[in-house]
Amino acid sequence: MRAIVIGAGMFGASTALQLARRGVQVKIFDFAHNGKATMAGAGIVCPWATQIEEPAWYEMYAAGARFYDTLIADLNGAGETDLGYRKVGALVTSQNADDFKAAGARIARRAATAPEAGDVRLLSPKDAQALFPVLKDGLEAWFIPGGARVDARLLSAAMVRQAIALGAEFSNDYVTLVQGPEGTAVRDGSGTLHTADEVIVAGGAWASQILAPLGVDHPVKPQKGQIVHLRLAGVQTAQWPVLLPMTSHYMLAFDDSRIVVGATREVDSGFDYRVTATGQASVLEAGMAIAPGLAHAEIIETRIGFRPAGPTIKPIFGRVPGAPGLSLANGLGAGGISIGPFAGKLLADVLTGKQTEVPVAPYAPQN
Amino acid sequence: MRAIVIGAGMFGASTALQLARRGVQVKIFDFAHNGKATMAGAGIVCPWATQIEEPAWYEMYAAGARFYDTLIADLNGAGETDLGYRKVGALVTSQNADDFKAAGARIARRAATAPEAGDVRLLSPKDAQALFPVLKDGLEAWFIPGGARVDARLLSAAMVRQAIALGAEFSNDYVTLVQGPEGTAVRDGSGTLHTADEVIVAGGAWASQILAPLGVDHPVKPQKGQIVHLRLAGVQTAQWPVLLPMTSHYMLAFDDSRIVVGATREVDSGFDYRVTATGQASVLEAGMAIAPGLAHAEIIETRIGFRPAGPTIKPIFGRVPGAPGLSLANGLGAGGISIGPFAGKLLADVLTGKQTEVPVAPYAPQN
Amino acid sequence: MRAIVIGAGMFGASTALQLARRGVQVKIFDFAHNGKATMAGAGIVCPWATQIEEPAWYEMYAAGARFYDTLIADLNGAGETDLGYRKVGALVTSQNADDFKAAGARIARRAATAPEAGDVRLLSPKDAQALFPVLKDGLEAWFIPGGARVDARLLSAAMVRQAIALGAEFSNDYVTLVQGPEGTAVRDGSGTLHTADEVIVAGGAWASQILAPLGVDHPVKPQKGQIVHLRLAGVQTAQWPVLLPMTSHYMLAFDDSRIVVGATREVDSGFDYRVTATGQASVLEAGMAIAPGLAHAEIIETRIGFRPAGPTIKPIFGRVPGAPGLSLANGLGAGGISIGPFAGKLLADVLTGKQTEVPVAPYAPQN
Amino acid sequence: MRAIVIGAGMFGASTALQLARRGVQVKIFDFAHNGKATMAGAGIVCPWATQIEEPAWYEMYAAGARFYDTLIADLNGAGETDLGYRKVGALVTSQNADDFKAAGARIARRAATAPEAGDVRLLSPKDAQALFPVLKDGLEAWFIPGGARVDARLLSAAMVRQAIALGAEFSNDYVTLVQGPEGTAVRDGSGTLHTADEVIVAGGAWASQILAPLGVDHPVKPQKGQIVHLRLAGVQTAQWPVLLPMTSHYMLAFDDSRIVVGATREVDSGFDYRVTATGQASVLEAGMAIAPGLAHAEIIETRIGFRPAGPTIKPIFGRVPGAPGLSLANGLGAGGISIGPFAGKLLADVLTGKQTEVPVAPYAPQN
Repeated sequence: MRAIVIGAGMFGASTALQLARRGVQVKIFDFAHNGKATMAGAGIVCPWATQIEEPAWYEMYAAGARFYDTLIADLNGAGETDLGYRKVGALVTSQNADDFKAAGARIARRAATAPEAGDVRLLSPKDAQALFPVLKDGLEAWFIPGGARVDARLLSAAMVRQAIALGAEFSNDYVTLVQGPEGTAVRDGSGTLHTADEVIVAGGAWASQILAPLGVDHPVKPQKGQIVHLRLAGVQTAQWPVLLPMTSHYMLAFDDSRIVVGATREVDSGFDYRVTATGQASVLEAGMAIAPGLAHAEIIETRIGFRPAGPTIKPIFGRVPGAPGLSLANGLGAGGISIGPFAGKLLADVLTGKQTEVPVAPYAPQN
Repeated sequence: MRAIVIGAGMFGASTALQLARRGVQVKIFDFAHNGKATMAGAGIVCPWATQIEEPAWYEMYAAGARFYDTLIADLNGAGETDLGYRKVGALVTSQNADDFKAAGARIARRAATAPEAGDVRLLSPKDAQALFPVLKDGLEAWFIPGGARVDARLLSAAMVRQAIALGAEFSNDYVTLVQGPEGTAVRDGSGTLHTADEVIVAGGAWASQILAPLGVDHPVKPQKGQIVHLRLAGVQTAQWPVLLPMTSHYMLAFDDSRIVVGATREVDSGFDYRVTATGQASVLEAGMAIAPGLAHAEIIETRIGFRPAGPTIKPIFGRVPGAPGLSLANGLGAGGISIGPFAGKLLADVLTGKQTEVPVAPYAPQN
Repeated sequence: MRAIVIGAGMFGASTALQLARRGVQVKIFDFAHNGKATMAGAGIVCPWATQIEEPAWYEMYAAGARFYDTLIADLNGAGETDLGYRKVGALVTSQNADDFKAAGARIARRAATAPEAGDVRLLSPKDAQALFPVLKDGLEAWFIPGGARVDARLLSAAMVRQAIALGAEFSNDYVTLVQGPEGTAVRDGSGTLHTADEVIVAGGAWASQILAPLGVDHPVKPQKGQIVHLRLAGVQTAQWPVLLPMTSHYMLAFDDSRIVVGATREVDSGFDYRVTATGQASVLEAGMAIAPGLAHAEIIETRIGFRPAGPTIKPIFGRVPGAPGLSLANGLGAGGISIGPFAGKLLADVLTGKQTEVPVAPYAPQN
Repeated sequence: MRAIVIGAGMFGASTALQLARRGVQVKIFDFAHNGKATMAGAGIVCPWATQIEEPAWYEMYAAGARFYDTLIADLNGAGETDLGYRKVGALVTSQNADDFKAAGARIARRAATAPEAGDVRLLSPKDAQALFPVLKDGLEAWFIPGGARVDARLLSAAMVRQAIALGAEFSNDYVTLVQGPEGTAVRDGSGTLHTADEVIVAGGAWASQILAPLGVDHPVKPQKGQIVHLRLAGVQTAQWPVLLPMTSHYMLAFDDSRIVVGATREVDSGFDYRVTATGQASVLEAGMAIAPGLAHAEIIETRIGFRPAGPTIKPIFGRVPGAPGLSLANGLGAGGISIGPFAGKLLADVLTGKQTEVPVAPYAPQN
């Protein structure tokens, strides 16, 4: 079996790797687009606190987090240890007492069936600050030990490398879908046609454009996020938990004294690849409001990502009805870094005729 | 009349501006792609030395250069003076005596009917070095006073600004072509449909991909160029002529002590947006071979552009047969910065039913 | 006569150029320090609105602005035309009625003896917005036609180039002052000693450090500024006036749709070369408060400069008492881009024994 | 005891950490200079192959490598695991048969007393390529299992963080040495005086300048290196050994598909912080000559470092004669990343009156 994967973000890279592991001959095409969601994504793996209750999405979210243990262990075993991954736990807090209480109930309910979340416990403001020293005074927090963070750039690159080590080919060319008599194919930038048994479009926010030549109407649109990277030079942040203040913002830290504060959610901006005055200011304000200790942190970078947002929050993956040899791997939205690797595995199962761990029908593309 | 222009490189920006001047309501869409030819182009305006003899192409090349005087004057008059434009002249030389002689004959023949080239004259090696101080010893040169250079980034941005000042709208969104019952339309990143009487695809190397949803087979492919920007701090380079050593390389300078050395011509690389070891080294070697005085220049940047190269060297523009409301503005290849502004004017003439200064049939898209 | 100038910011570059014009053999040393004030300076030339009334400083400030006409004309005549200079005028406004009235009185008083300020006039909010379209509604403004802006990076580089064209030598090495039996000398990074009749320390915020080996106690300290560069793509900003809202912030625009918003004034930060969360946010907030139309502008860059701030606001230049062959050119603080070129000329007059246009005793270094 | 360390490169950071571990109150000052050697250093830890035979230097070099096991274990234990460190081994080869043979003898002799070098073995060209796939055909190689590589940026930052965790203070200010009646002190950028029992100048190539105010004649000068970082996207390079072809160039790889090719050794360039045409080209050519598989690698960055080179190859550290409270930690040159951590420990021993593991007299500063 031969497969072509378009897009090497979290979803595409995982699909490619899982297919390669099953012996499929994989070609990956991934152009250097500006604004890829995976390249900008924060990297939080902590489904249990979310305020969203959509069951089919939550199931995928939770399973995605669960899958990380396996994934990371596999990659480590293959010599890929530099992934920015660490199970640092998550602090869930709120400046609103009712919201905080509701969050506690929600987390408790979910953790009850998710041993990987660990023993959730209530922290005093002081204990919360001990874990996340720049946190505002006076905030209690729920601590979820199973929360983790990962550098999605490193992780997706590692999955691609592993796929290549298993025989996959990689090109950073820009390709076009072609519908031929024998199924879906792609034409690369030099005009060469590449055929395969399966073409998987994992093009994120660009997928609708990629699919247009086949007349497939794919409802995913870009949801723009601006996300700020700060540095607290000299501060050991490697063990800082993820911070979820139950707003649209969040915070996480990496080993190199770097704190990531996210993010705007801009639904009508299309592919507007610009850091804006109001976007940057709003993220900084939100960050300093919950973590005043960041006021004198250094701004090292602002990233822009176009999250692939579908009409519902559910991911969309599987074979495209009426388009032989064409599959989709998309629609992950803001939860993409948690869900992507697992969803890629499910799709690889589908394409190679294996039983999936969870039912995948709810995520099937419509046409 | 309403028009949509996709792509704001040299060709698209000029088309948009010329349409706006004729009272057309213009919308411009231009995504932040990496590798746009205009953003990386060297900026030489000097058709008379080229070794290529294809008549229909040369006619356009020469007319393009002639048009610059008008264009620059118009833009200056509209307050746009920061264009990096200067008629510095061109030095044509060669390390091969026969080639040098042939170049002289070629230039003389062409200059005879091109007063704007100025009085071409033969310079001694010493005089050539006086104009271009880092030039290798012992090289005679033909000096063409009419040669010019321009900063294509500044020029295309200025044309867009002027179009906007005349009522055009601009968005850096990423759009998809849609064929509807009433003609060609485009869908933006947010899913909104934009209709117009005319849609002009000026997407450069990406045009084939942009046209794919309409089933239009457009034969333009990317020809990758890597181009190196050097700085000779403290050296006044503002008046340095363009240097054309009759190889695939060339050199030009800007006011800020910057020397641009170009470029690779990579035909099979597709959209490979990477500065490569061999690409960079080869451009540097070629540059230092003809201009040893660059050895200790500072490397400030290497740019990558995908020139839109058609099956012949001729540009491709005009209405697309069988596709109502769809036009092309593309295929400029390596001469794009010279040709683009004039070709945009011609296309605007065609679309608004005006007589064109030169016959445009040779450039019409086939289908 | 031989002179060494340490530092090629506005003051040093001008001194070097003016000395070279007088036939002095000049060597310039300028290391690639991060945070040079000239490299980050906004570039406003408009002394007449300042709230500061110190006479000796204001005299220099006003004379500095007056000198620009000569300087720019000279540089243009020498082929240096790409300086980002334009006499766009200045808008002086305030959100406080009393401040606005006081500003008007102040400007009128000063303009009365400064014909180069032009005919100051009161603009209605609508007329003010016509000149500066992103300005907040409802603000009257004083318009000072003689206000100008300049790109200090381009201007200082052009002055250095002109000095070199007149025989000066330039190195980006890092040097140390040495006091020898025959006067002051400098040792370069390779250990070579360079002697001269006059050594001029124009090292800006670093001057105290540079002077330390000679035991000279120089009271200048860094005053950190963070300054944000925005882009309003498609907007023709070339003619926008400088905006002075009589706060610690200000705004100006350049030809390439760029708006510069400045700046923090951080007095205790030492040489802390970091863009900070609170610094960036505060500048953005201040900018959007007075110019709400900037909310969706793109952030393209934040620059950091360490202004050389002395114990008083007055510049400090002239021979250092007790240190043969040593002079200072420093202490310009926030007005440096206006004052630097003229002050450099005065210092060159002093060093070559010419009569100065204005008395320079008030600016003489103490020891 | 209170100490001030100026410079947080490999030597300074280690000194600060080791002092902090001994209970010393440490202040670290480290300005954001361009061209710090540690920030640009390749990161090879493999003393046994060097062609240099100077005994006092080699002893330090070998001891430095040996010390890495302890250092890395300590840092890992303190939660610092992201150091880019890996004991990947080293490949020693040569295109000259005699040199290759001599290298084998040299390595064997040294490895005999250095069990940490591991079991050195001769590899066939094929086996060498298996370890370093881009290597030129036909080259035998000695493989030294104990060779390692480290990311000096990450390692020095981690040492600083650990020092801070133990109570040290850190500032990125720029300071000046002051000799007072009670010993050496430093003045920061804001003018505040900081006193300490010991001031350690670990300013690398800048140390001579830093020491000048005290009249200390320190013979260290910058030796400029330009070093190129390439990426082989999709290639798992995490286990690639260091490549030492017994020329002035070398190569090493990191986990993120990054290959580092170094470096120029420019002795007369002073502090010339520029990537030059000839520097870049020469490193690329040397790299492609020994590793042709790099021709199509992506150039991601060229770094510049000024190695602190003393009059001999030996490091210089210890108390400065005649300058109470002043010590030096400098002169590491090209071996600095190997030697720095251990030398910092030795200096901390000296300053706290401990017995040193090896005699330190050969490295004492002269005056």
